[in-house]
Amino acid sequence: MAQKSWQSNPRARRQRAKGRPAAPRSRFRLSGPAPDGPTLLYGWHTVKAALENPGRRIRRLLATENALRRLADDGVSLPVKPELVRPDVIDARLGPDAVHQGLLAEADPLSAPHLSELPSEGIVLVLDQITDPHNVGAILRSAAAFAVKAIITTARHSPEATGVLAKSASGALELVPLVTVQNLARGMEELRQRGFLLVGLESGGDSDLADVALRAPLALVFGAEGKGLRQLTKATCDHLSRIDLPGKMKSLNVSNAAALGLYVASRRLRGT
Amino acid sequence: MAQKSWQSNPRARRQRAKGRPAAPRSRFRLSGPAPDGPTLLYGWHTVKAALENPGRRIRRLLATENALRRLADDGVSLPVKPELVRPDVIDARLGPDAVHQGLLAEADPLSAPHLSELPSEGIVLVLDQITDPHNVGAILRSAAAFAVKAIITTARHSPEATGVLAKSASGALELVPLVTVQNLARGMEELRQRGFLLVGLESGGDSDLADVALRAPLALVFGAEGKGLRQLTKATCDHLSRIDLPGKMKSLNVSNAAALGLYVASRRLRGT
Repeated sequence: MAQKSWQSNPRARRQRAKGRPAAPRSRFRLSGPAPDGPTLLYGWHTVKAALENPGRRIRRLLATENALRRLADDGVSLPVKPELVRPDVIDARLGPDAVHQGLLAEADPLSAPHLSELPSEGIVLVLDQITDPHNVGAILRSAAAFAVKAIITTARHSPEATGVLAKSASGALELVPLVTVQNLARGMEELRQRGFLLVGLESGGDSDLADVALRAPLALVFGAEGKGLRQLTKATCDHLSRIDLPGKMKSLNVSNAAALGLYVASRRLRGT
Repeated sequence: MAQKSWQSNPRARRQRAKGRPAAPRSRFRLSGPAPDGPTLLYGWHTVKAALENPGRRIRRLLATENALRRLADDGVSLPVKPELVRPDVIDARLGPDAVHQGLLAEADPLSAPHLSELPSEGIVLVLDQITDPHNVGAILRSAAAFAVKAIITTARHSPEATGVLAKSASGALELVPLVTVQNLARGMEELRQRGFLLVGLESGGDSDLADVALRAPLALVFGAEGKGLRQLTKATCDHLSRIDLPGKMKSLNVSNAAALGLYVASRRLRGT
């Protein structure tokens, strides 16, 4: 199943053509390492994917000689004149722990579609106040791997689509639309009206996900570690499911749980 | 299937009784935030599991009033007199990004079994120079969830079992033995002689893991992101498998890949 970028959604294009702002800043927050600054993208896969995304506006590109050569070898065209720097210049900007592989881009945030612009097909993920950027980044990456149509998060209590999140997503930020909503339960109700089956995943769920009658369009709903799904989020789901675990540990890292949920659901929807 | 701690392995006990050191410091490295200092354990699940592990020697326990009350409510007995502190004392020790939930313990590292002490049963994981402590911690957690018997890593190029790794493992460090070896390929050969089937996971593998004839005892082998499995590691595997991904992204975060590998393998071994 090929994954269609939301940008190719004719309805979204029409709505933007009508002058409706596709992504007002208040809906897709910036900040991160530099609050209200540009989106920071670093690391090979993350920057390469951004350079290859026609929908991503790059403002500045800092690159080492090696990284520039590697981009040229891969035939990646550069939308801005790169600034040739030594690795320590990027180190100084990002801190010593960031594995930047000689590449740092400053970019505009991607415009985000409205919930109403999403196609009623396939699988979407709903994230209920998952705040850890490593986890949300890894979930984005798995979402791109399993051809997820969109990730829906709350405008508040979600990490910004920059920095660590973008690095952990390993380029998937350019592939999976991130939709932010003010009120998650209302957003879920809108999905239900659009035909989505809403399945919440939590360790105390009523049924093993592998035994639930899944069908598309499907929304898989995950909560933050520790807090889990909020009460209203749970109440808005059609099913609450678990993933049976044979060991002593009865819960998983949320990105690992999301990967398992996507694996089970995508095989079911493909009939295998 | 109940998971047996390696400490209950009679052979391991016999060997220790013979005076063989169970975990010389050179085999189970310390360091981390404080190089060669104590193992640092923080966060609710991580510290609670350590306090409940009779094999873990706790040297110091810093706790906030709330955290102490919560431990008492849960009936956790304390092996040392706790030091009542304000949260900012722990903040100052760990840095502002550590989610410590009012608990910080300094402990001795756990003693680690020899490869020869592992039972020839179930599933073990082999990690080929995976260096990111978040990833190794999440893998430990999934390993405990899927009743994995041990994780085998290289003594070099592996993160220390402390700090971020311990936090990401969410208590699983106390549940799954970490075996370190000097030479991974030789360690894998030893597993093969003990009857283990060796299956390497990589995105370019020959066959989908779901189609491979898996059987216990089974070793699933994972490489670092970017570098993947080293050449000799690959050559030492019986099979190289992939997990088929229907989307544009063709690789997963390694802890997500490990969770999927464990899910597929543990269902197969249980015959479901």
